[in-house]
Amino acid sequence: MLAKGGCPKSMLSIKDALEAVEGKWKLLILFALSASPKRFKQISKEVGGITDKTLSKELKNLEANELIKREVFDTFPPTVEYSITEHGLSLEKVIDELHFWGLKHRKQVIGK
Amino acid sequence: MLAKGGCPKSMLSIKDALEAVEGKWKLLILFALSASPKRFKQISKEVGGITDKTLSKELKNLEANELIKREVFDTFPPTVEYSITEHGLSLEKVIDELHFWGLKHRKQVIGK
Repeated sequence: MLAKGGCPKSMLSIKDALEAVEGKWKLLILFALSASPKRFKQISKEVGGITDKTLSKELKNLEANELIKREVFDTFPPTVEYSITEHGLSLEKVIDELHFWGLKHRKQVIGK
Repeated sequence: MLAKGGCPKSMLSIKDALEAVEGKWKLLILFALSASPKRFKQISKEVGGITDKTLSKELKNLEANELIKREVFDTFPPTVEYSITEHGLSLEKVIDELHFWGLKHRKQVIGK
């Protein structure tokens, strides 16, 4: 693929993908939700270092992109749970490759 | 991998990777440089929609993370060329997966 570098059509689809997952939080939130549906506070704790305001904004954006689903349960008091959608799960390979590359990058550059 | 969702060690390496390539531009710049070394204006044109100030900042950051190399050639006037490093090329699979996912996302969500 990289040999085709600069192909305008590929550039567009990479842009599309980057726009849907841009920022440092969205993929981490999806990763946290990939194991099981979670409540707001659980996501916040697992992702780490994110403010409630930012997490709330990111969750709305992920929902708009159909990557996660928000469900309200009629308990007392009502509970809200977030889960990953099938479309969100389809980012698995992207997250996998980032994970592998992150390990390598820490060894090669950050670890210096 | 996603089955291991929430594993703190994986979370760290994904964070590392996202920090190195964060924002909407870095991976696009790497993609543009993957075909051949390029000059500033060529990169700007291929990536599209990026200001000179932002491109300059992103190039410096990519250089600091050893993902690209900046070379000055003793021509008249002097020319500067940017090329992708081996470490930058190792992001190939990440970029590939983003490309494939971006195609899918356009079909499924953006195209609606």
